[in-house]
Amino acid sequence: MKASQFLITTLKEAPADAEVASHRLMTRAGMVRKLGAGIYNYMPMGLRVIRKIEAIVREEMNRAGAVEMTMPVIQPAEYWQESGRFEKMGPELLRIKDRHDRDFVVQPTSEEVVTDVARQELRSYKQLPRNLYQIQTKFRDERRPRFGLMRGREFIMKDAYSFDRDEAGAKASYQVMGAAYRRIFDRFGLRYRAVAADSGAIGGDLSEEFQVIAATGEDAIVYCPHSDYAANMEKAEALAPAGPRPAPSNPLVRTPTPGKSTCAEVAALLGVPLATTVKSLVLATDTLNEAGEVVKSQVWLLLLRGDHDMNEVKVGKVPGLDQGYRFATVPEIEAHFGCKPGYLGPIGLKQPVKLVVDREVAVMADWICGGNEVDVHLTGVNWGRDLPEPDQVADIRNVVEGDPSPDGKGRLAIERGIEVGHVFYLGTKYSKGMNATFLDEDGKPKHFEMGCYGIGITRLPAAAIEQNHDERGIIWPDAIAPFTVVVCPIGMDRSAEVKAAADNLYMQLLNDGVDVILDDRGERPGAMFADWELIGVPHRITIGDRGLKAGEVEYQHRRDSAPTAVKLADIVAHVKGRLQA
Amino acid sequence: MKASQFLITTLKEAPADAEVASHRLMTRAGMVRKLGAGIYNYMPMGLRVIRKIEAIVREEMNRAGAVEMTMPVIQPAEYWQESGRFEKMGPELLRIKDRHDRDFVVQPTSEEVVTDVARQELRSYKQLPRNLYQIQTKFRDERRPRFGLMRGREFIMKDAYSFDRDEAGAKASYQVMGAAYRRIFDRFGLRYRAVAADSGAIGGDLSEEFQVIAATGEDAIVYCPHSDYAANMEKAEALAPAGPRPAPSNPLVRTPTPGKSTCAEVAALLGVPLATTVKSLVLATDTLNEAGEVVKSQVWLLLLRGDHDMNEVKVGKVPGLDQGYRFATVPEIEAHFGCKPGYLGPIGLKQPVKLVVDREVAVMADWICGGNEVDVHLTGVNWGRDLPEPDQVADIRNVVEGDPSPDGKGRLAIERGIEVGHVFYLGTKYSKGMNATFLDEDGKPKHFEMGCYGIGITRLPAAAIEQNHDERGIIWPDAIAPFTVVVCPIGMDRSAEVKAAADNLYMQLLNDGVDVILDDRGERPGAMFADWELIGVPHRITIGDRGLKAGEVEYQHRRDSAPTAVKLADIVAHVKGRLQA
Repeated sequence: MKASQFLITTLKEAPADAEVASHRLMTRAGMVRKLGAGIYNYMPMGLRVIRKIEAIVREEMNRAGAVEMTMPVIQPAEYWQESGRFEKMGPELLRIKDRHDRDFVVQPTSEEVVTDVARQELRSYKQLPRNLYQIQTKFRDERRPRFGLMRGREFIMKDAYSFDRDEAGAKASYQVMGAAYRRIFDRFGLRYRAVAADSGAIGGDLSEEFQVIAATGEDAIVYCPHSDYAANMEKAEALAPAGPRPAPSNPLVRTPTPGKSTCAEVAALLGVPLATTVKSLVLATDTLNEAGEVVKSQVWLLLLRGDHDMNEVKVGKVPGLDQGYRFATVPEIEAHFGCKPGYLGPIGLKQPVKLVVDREVAVMADWICGGNEVDVHLTGVNWGRDLPEPDQVADIRNVVEGDPSPDGKGRLAIERGIEVGHVFYLGTKYSKGMNATFLDEDGKPKHFEMGCYGIGITRLPAAAIEQNHDERGIIWPDAIAPFTVVVCPIGMDRSAEVKAAADNLYMQLLNDGVDVILDDRGERPGAMFADWELIGVPHRITIGDRGLKAGEVEYQHRRDSAPTAVKLADIVAHVKGRLQA
Repeated sequence: MKASQFLITTLKEAPADAEVASHRLMTRAGMVRKLGAGIYNYMPMGLRVIRKIEAIVREEMNRAGAVEMTMPVIQPAEYWQESGRFEKMGPELLRIKDRHDRDFVVQPTSEEVVTDVARQELRSYKQLPRNLYQIQTKFRDERRPRFGLMRGREFIMKDAYSFDRDEAGAKASYQVMGAAYRRIFDRFGLRYRAVAADSGAIGGDLSEEFQVIAATGEDAIVYCPHSDYAANMEKAEALAPAGPRPAPSNPLVRTPTPGKSTCAEVAALLGVPLATTVKSLVLATDTLNEAGEVVKSQVWLLLLRGDHDMNEVKVGKVPGLDQGYRFATVPEIEAHFGCKPGYLGPIGLKQPVKLVVDREVAVMADWICGGNEVDVHLTGVNWGRDLPEPDQVADIRNVVEGDPSPDGKGRLAIERGIEVGHVFYLGTKYSKGMNATFLDEDGKPKHFEMGCYGIGITRLPAAAIEQNHDERGIIWPDAIAPFTVVVCPIGMDRSAEVKAAADNLYMQLLNDGVDVILDDRGERPGAMFADWELIGVPHRITIGDRGLKAGEVEYQHRRDSAPTAVKLADIVAHVKGRLQA
């Protein structure tokens, strides 16, 4: 490609609403342009990146035996009504009426439609296993679209769906996809982790997220540096402490803590470690009648160490809280504790509550908690002596750096990531919901065992940039760069030698199958280099009159701090040596 | 590709609603599945065809200097309000409200958005000319979607838009696209014509349709077999007859024609050629006040030869009718002609009307028309003698086979076509409507001169099939076949020799870059052949035990009536010799 025939639209300034580096840089590099909230034009430079990502995904999906098809963007609501999602999904499902006032949705994913395809086309066990995928436009009407392509409303997703005869088959299909995803992410040239994720109601361990590592990521990734353990924060287990609970050594004391309503304030006031305090979180569950009215509420008290955070997903798995819970209201709290929030604790309640104790708290001795009286805490609290032994102990907290790894192979570390892929075992959720069956070998209809597998095609460039950029711009890995090599001639219009050498080198690289762009726009060197550093093309060759006299050109990788002089005769081999395999 | 790893879902029966061959065959061949009215899944076999079409279009668009980008499917209404199309377009424009009750449309094309891109990104004449295109999902909420992909609601279109400094530049860009379209359609391997089309209000000759020739096509294509003249019916000019008008030879006679209200009935009754009769069509134009109320109406009488049809587009260009017209109501007709429709004519009116006479009628002598009295016609009517010479003569009819070609090079022929492409000079319609300007060399802002260029990507397979099919199924041209070659082993499971030969041949063709599928499903020969003839793969190689003993396999082109025995050693060369260049 010659730059003069392409559309390069770099900007000096990022838009005011661009909060993250990828949004700023993709806009400044002319890769995307905002058309509306969460809706973007993919400009020519950005589309090249998207197409390269699509090509890698397509190649590896095909290699893994998946078959590509395309499902409509606008889908009749009847399929979504059949699965129940038309009613269940919130306003992020964009609903439309056509000219005949019939209901449609703009697809956010395609479980319903692909399940319909399966029940129509996959009649026999002989046609299984089968994996169908598409790379298609999706829409989610996010309440607050932001961060450019990171959380847009219209986006491109690769979504694949596997259909198997039985659970063992489905799990094998899931593994095949997991392996394909590893190849895909390896090929992107990004640092990433496949992390165990919560699989919700389905249970088991068949849910993995593919997270691109980036300091600015929204997700916390928990991993063990000494093993291959990795999970997201929701999923990562906090093991029960290994040792026994120490014996009580302090008496129970009512301690005045005027105005100190948080564990941190209390610890500071008393000059003790935060880890000796225990915080009280008050939840409630409601029993509804058939009309959906609340007929009874139950208040729960959760105890966590003062320096730990509650994990909502783990709490949602505690028996009794697993049908949904909410935070208690202030009147509920005052009725049960006789005190306003900030000084709550498990001793001396007005009305009984259900108690859930974190594993860590269950083995603490001589701890500190609220006294159920304003400006008062209790110190030297001990299980068995000051209150009954806890009968419901559970893992309800987020792990922290240094916690033991659940696989017993060291201590956990935490880093940030951006979720760009997800593989998930669905079981029969949709096939039962839509009665999608095949005839098995015994002649009986059985529900498909399904899996679903997504990759956020248009989120990937944003994640890649969050991981790979500097103050000058983007730094693309070779595999997904809009162009792999840029040839920058200096003074091409003044020097016939420079022009000839640049044209010649461009043609050589092109003929060797290198994705090269020749910057023939006639920009001054400063502006030209700034453009390409902003756009992030990984390899640059600069050709100038002075160098040519010595038979030399300059090579610079986007991560190199300075250019290297290379003989013109050697430059093609030199560049090819620097390309990532 | 091996068939066992693909999804082949052929059907014995076509759906009941499939009215045309392409819809029947695409459904039976498992290429599409209907999801809702005018909304289809592109199944794996059909998607392969679509992808091949896309690849050819993309390659030639790039070669022609166009740059690919992608505009959103869901577009904020503000752009469409700016151009006025949000209000002007009928219900075929699918309108949506998002969760914040803001208006959006599902794009049917993207003139507005690309014009916005231009006004933001193309600031200087130095960036022109520029052609931006996308291959993207579109939606038109057709009132009556039908014929499968031929007239669907959701479809894929390639839409390109050119931006130039001036009209000369725009016309050059238009010519570049016309040439690219010819290369694209040549490469598809389809019989097609590029036909001049009406360019509406813009005028000039810068509108061409690309029509795939098919007997079942909705459009009539007019062409000259002795020259390169071709136009659609709306556009094709009916020249004024060459010779002078004959002198009157018959007297004007009131002739009873009881119950004969059409020209055909009258000609049959009187035993004269239909071409001696003249039909009267009565139109009306309305003058509106500022509130949009009709304040005055004008009645028009159009005279056409009895065997000719009115051309609505041509009539719409007659001065006085060019701001819109309608057919007159029966009360209007009775008030002006004193007679009900069926016996109308230009002689003896109750109130004056404006008369428009077709070129052909203007040179007729001794003609027959209605007598403005029920059951009465006039014969021997002559201009000048029986009524004044016509003062408004125009081309207002459709041409017919045998009319002289407008280029003077022979006589016109007519065939049927399916419109799959359109190149159109837009001028400044959108750039003025949305005030999209660039800074010209003189430092002054000027409106872009634009063109737009569409190809119906998903309509193309349907058009290709309408042109190329037989009673057994589809016959694809090589370039857009889902697979180019199919290898059909007979009894692969019983014969190790057949299996080895088939596997070997498959690998050889694959390594030679041939898009081959090996049918390893283990189907019986009859079912296997029926599938591939239905699917329409152009080249088939059959490998059986008996032939192999003689060192032979069978080759059959989809259009061949019988297979040819070919030495196994020669088959690759043989097939490659039969591939279309």
